[in-house]
Amino acid sequence: MVKMNKTGEEILAVKILPEESVIRVESGTNLLEALVSAGIRINARCGGAGACGKCKVVIKDGTVEELSDEKSRLTAEDKEKGIRLACRSIVREDIIVEVPFESRVRKLAMGEKDTVEGRKRIPPCEKVDYFSHGTHDAPVRKFYIELAEPSLQDNSGDLTRLFGALHREHGIDVREIDLPVLRILPGILREAEWKVTASILCEGTNCEKGAENCSIKNCSNLSIVRVEPGDTTASQFALAVDVGTTSIHVQIVDVVNRKPVCKSAEYNGQTAFGEDVISRIVYSLKDGHLEQLQRAAARTINELLKELLGEAGLTASDISFITAAGNTTMTQLLAGINSKHLREAPYVPTVNALPWLKAEDIGIDVEPNTPVYLFPGVASYVGGDIVSGIMGFGLARMDELTLYLDLGTNGEVVVGNKEWMMTASCSAGPAFEGGGLTCGMRATLGAVQDFFMDPDTKEPVVITIGNKKPIGVCGSGVITILAELLRFGILQQNGKLNPDTGSDRVREGESGLEYVLVWKEKSGSGEDIIITEADLDNILRAKGAVYAGCASLIKQVGLTFDMLQKVVLTGSFGNYVDIRSAITIGLLPDLPLDVYCFIPNGSLLGARLAAFSCALTGEAEQIAKSMTNIELSEDSTFMDGYMAAMFLPHTDTSLFPTVSAELEKLKEGYKS
Amino acid sequence: MVKMNKTGEEILAVKILPEESVIRVESGTNLLEALVSAGIRINARCGGAGACGKCKVVIKDGTVEELSDEKSRLTAEDKEKGIRLACRSIVREDIIVEVPFESRVRKLAMGEKDTVEGRKRIPPCEKVDYFSHGTHDAPVRKFYIELAEPSLQDNSGDLTRLFGALHREHGIDVREIDLPVLRILPGILREAEWKVTASILCEGTNCEKGAENCSIKNCSNLSIVRVEPGDTTASQFALAVDVGTTSIHVQIVDVVNRKPVCKSAEYNGQTAFGEDVISRIVYSLKDGHLEQLQRAAARTINELLKELLGEAGLTASDISFITAAGNTTMTQLLAGINSKHLREAPYVPTVNALPWLKAEDIGIDVEPNTPVYLFPGVASYVGGDIVSGIMGFGLARMDELTLYLDLGTNGEVVVGNKEWMMTASCSAGPAFEGGGLTCGMRATLGAVQDFFMDPDTKEPVVITIGNKKPIGVCGSGVITILAELLRFGILQQNGKLNPDTGSDRVREGESGLEYVLVWKEKSGSGEDIIITEADLDNILRAKGAVYAGCASLIKQVGLTFDMLQKVVLTGSFGNYVDIRSAITIGLLPDLPLDVYCFIPNGSLLGARLAAFSCALTGEAEQIAKSMTNIELSEDSTFMDGYMAAMFLPHTDTSLFPTVSAELEKLKEGYKS
Repeated sequence: MVKMNKTGEEILAVKILPEESVIRVESGTNLLEALVSAGIRINARCGGAGACGKCKVVIKDGTVEELSDEKSRLTAEDKEKGIRLACRSIVREDIIVEVPFESRVRKLAMGEKDTVEGRKRIPPCEKVDYFSHGTHDAPVRKFYIELAEPSLQDNSGDLTRLFGALHREHGIDVREIDLPVLRILPGILREAEWKVTASILCEGTNCEKGAENCSIKNCSNLSIVRVEPGDTTASQFALAVDVGTTSIHVQIVDVVNRKPVCKSAEYNGQTAFGEDVISRIVYSLKDGHLEQLQRAAARTINELLKELLGEAGLTASDISFITAAGNTTMTQLLAGINSKHLREAPYVPTVNALPWLKAEDIGIDVEPNTPVYLFPGVASYVGGDIVSGIMGFGLARMDELTLYLDLGTNGEVVVGNKEWMMTASCSAGPAFEGGGLTCGMRATLGAVQDFFMDPDTKEPVVITIGNKKPIGVCGSGVITILAELLRFGILQQNGKLNPDTGSDRVREGESGLEYVLVWKEKSGSGEDIIITEADLDNILRAKGAVYAGCASLIKQVGLTFDMLQKVVLTGSFGNYVDIRSAITIGLLPDLPLDVYCFIPNGSLLGARLAAFSCALTGEAEQIAKSMTNIELSEDSTFMDGYMAAMFLPHTDTSLFPTVSAELEKLKEGYKS
Repeated sequence: MVKMNKTGEEILAVKILPEESVIRVESGTNLLEALVSAGIRINARCGGAGACGKCKVVIKDGTVEELSDEKSRLTAEDKEKGIRLACRSIVREDIIVEVPFESRVRKLAMGEKDTVEGRKRIPPCEKVDYFSHGTHDAPVRKFYIELAEPSLQDNSGDLTRLFGALHREHGIDVREIDLPVLRILPGILREAEWKVTASILCEGTNCEKGAENCSIKNCSNLSIVRVEPGDTTASQFALAVDVGTTSIHVQIVDVVNRKPVCKSAEYNGQTAFGEDVISRIVYSLKDGHLEQLQRAAARTINELLKELLGEAGLTASDISFITAAGNTTMTQLLAGINSKHLREAPYVPTVNALPWLKAEDIGIDVEPNTPVYLFPGVASYVGGDIVSGIMGFGLARMDELTLYLDLGTNGEVVVGNKEWMMTASCSAGPAFEGGGLTCGMRATLGAVQDFFMDPDTKEPVVITIGNKKPIGVCGSGVITILAELLRFGILQQNGKLNPDTGSDRVREGESGLEYVLVWKEKSGSGEDIIITEADLDNILRAKGAVYAGCASLIKQVGLTFDMLQKVVLTGSFGNYVDIRSAITIGLLPDLPLDVYCFIPNGSLLGARLAAFSCALTGEAEQIAKSMTNIELSEDSTFMDGYMAAMFLPHTDTSLFPTVSAELEKLKEGYKS
């Protein structure tokens, strides 16, 4: 029997294996989109363009219409087996499709990484005391009030009565109320016998006029967002979110006691449509795709939220408000905003500071009118995640000249102190996230995340996440691999492998020399795990861009690296990197190790702090406004610096005195 | 084949005759609700309680489950014929149902009434010149702006650029933008090559600080609600709405040229669920019924809007904003607000002054974020329609001591001038709308709307709407019938029929005497059209309540009727009433006829004016705040006055000198 939807299109059944779940789609639906909509976390790094070949599925029954694909990654043998790329397949009849393990995005590994002894991890940065002085009302504050019962002598409206009581008992002048609250207000007031708790959102902080003005009582734009029976002021929870391009981190916080409750993280559901912000933006340009990306990110947040609510023993209605930080693209996509122009010169964001939104605007599964704060950004490539991190780290309160570096696919750098701040961004590419490498992978189970040479055997030792058999290399592994190969003379300072080491691990590959990290007999994939000269080139570009970006910014403000009193690393990459190796390859400046510290997730830290205090959302807004963004593409010295930084560690060895000394010493060691 | 919906309920087919349309409903659906949802305008004055017996339908095929109904209005014969009350029928299988003509609410007759020569219609009130001085920006004003194109040297965000241009070119500081506009902003700006028209909503007028501050430039809360390519400032349209309990009037206005474009009216779709505000509120208390009433009113507005857009050659997106006025119940129900407590002492409204809403909040078929202004009210029974009318009439600008009377099911009265205003409301009951009378009907085709006695034959002559055969009596007819019967001695001053006139038209009926207005041979219904003593009692109660309400209010402020310099009538009833007859029966005070004037629809007049000027929405807000409401139920003198006013014209004949003289003269005429 042929089923039709309302507008007469045919409805088909897609059975997904091994889940055995069945979804219904209209004829003509793209199979990748159908699978993602069904919550299957499928890998499609290239954004469904057919380029990456990661979204392989097996058609077990029925056939799909295949889009023409000149550069097909599928062999004749693959096709024989029924293997197709989901992104190039159109559903035209009922089918059964298997999504193999390899094509799925795996659960994000949190804190599962092991460390190698002797590695110099970066110490966590010292905490700032935010609450020692000034007023620190939460951005949504609860007020308990007892209203006078109406009578024929005093029968003013319920809302007038509520506003009046807030003024009389708490000295605050509220003028607005959310319509959904107003609709049910009469019932709540009477059910509660006129004793209620009102949650008041402050949108117009006057924080720019000084911290002492930065309280709900001085707020210029207050609205009632919830009214509950009785006195519920003893309990209030918020949701803090870091919307990363690769992963989304979510944390429930106890607003009253100013402490975290529980947290979790997961790959951003948008990764199915592209690895980095550029491919997401490109994907978003087609009809309906922007909404699809919006929903994908919201779905990830909702899944994490559900998990955390269960863990904390809370319900969705316990979430009083949400604070979220992300880069400009993530922020705009989460808000459903056209982001086409972020990727085109002159790189104009639609909006730097969004107004408070409602949960229903972005499809988060809490009370529909729950307020959502999205951190303001500075520019297209310096977003709310950086502002949140700078606020969370406390840079805007510090005397010390500080460099703040958020290292991921995009590298954002801020330099300054409480007096001034400058920022810039550089495109590192996906190498530090394991992308763009022959055997690159994300930081999940089986990823090589540390690496060293046995000084005796000159044979490599790999450390993997979860101590599984190695199947690929993730970002933090890349740094130590390069550093170790350089130290042992296998990699030359120009970034080329040394053909004359005598090791059979250096061999001629399909496109130049390559180095075998793990022989296939020992790998989890059954293939040699290698790093090629093309891979090395990608890594050098990445580290060159980051170093040159920092150097250009420092130079623009008339400083030199050695004047920095602190260097702060953040981003998941910063968590696990061996700092000495990062300096050895010239990714980070050659400074005394004790100037470095790290924040596991600056973006989430700021989001959490903002949930405790509207003074801190106010501080974030001031930071966003006061930070000056430098477009490196406009800086004529950047390209020279970038070329120089493509060397290991740098063409100007005087910039890396300890590395030069180390390499010299090691060379002598080999000779002896 | 049994069909199921998503949650497994059985889906049934209801075929409606004579339309032959088929609707699908879940098993267990109330037939009345199903028919109303399908857009069938069915009569159910009692709100579906089974009491009025107006919603008769004929089940032509299948059977319905009947709810127990002790006071059933259906005879055994009716039941034999398949007649059922829709409100007491539950759909349990596929059925075919006929909705007969008599059970339907007919199209509102607009301006179709004929007049009787010699009747003293009330002259229209003089127009006030609102725009001669002060600033008069529309509440949503369009601004044309040319933005500087972004460059790498100036790549601030699109929204910052837009705000900046509004400040630079027009001196206004906007801080907010609707999310749906923001989402598409980048595309519009670039498509329009940075030349756009922004529509700005002013929510926080500073009109209370004086008219000169009452402009968009001085507004404290501005937001961008639309951005269009190019310069569209030459054209702007708004929708003005009067949300009446019985009928909804809608008008498209040309904001730029400050003139109406076209208008239409229709019975409020909510009438299917109850005749008056009390029965609507009672209906709204059950689960889902509030939403049903909300949608019913919105549907009527949408139907009228569609008709008007076609007439004006406009599209829904041409509507820039909406202004609407209604009584407190209508306003709250349209906004979907719990209105239970409006009908219970101490008669507390949920909200007097609603914030601006969005069209999507209330389901109006224009751009979802189109701003909607709902006029503020004063109290539970003095709503936005009165405030709108007072503003529209200009009472708040006048020196003359004025009485403003809006006469319908509820009578609202305002007395005052530009210095002060007092208001009260009285429940007149439905008699003046033709309700509660044996042969009462609304003012549609065939309704007796005027009536006089042929002085020679002493036989009555009836005038009907549309000159159709008479089928019943509407409100304006009721007044002249009473006055003529009184003048000719058929009706006595105590409200009883005179049994001794010798006319066969005065006869003993089922419950006391009755008067035959039209013999069945001449009627359109095939039945005698009569007025009974019970009917007369209802009318006396109505007129007594209105007169006593006005008198009590006048007395409370230490005045007497003869001090009034103007009496303004409004409401559809006021349009057609014969003023002399209204005075004769003691409904209106016995004042010189030239103090009376009328406004066809004060509520719509104010709504239209507000669309032209935020100074006038500001004026409305000031009126709502400054008007003092008197609860007549709390006024000990009201009940005495009411009892006295149950006489014709009044127990105190000195209050009605011209009526006494007239009646005396006529009596003598009969004697001679």
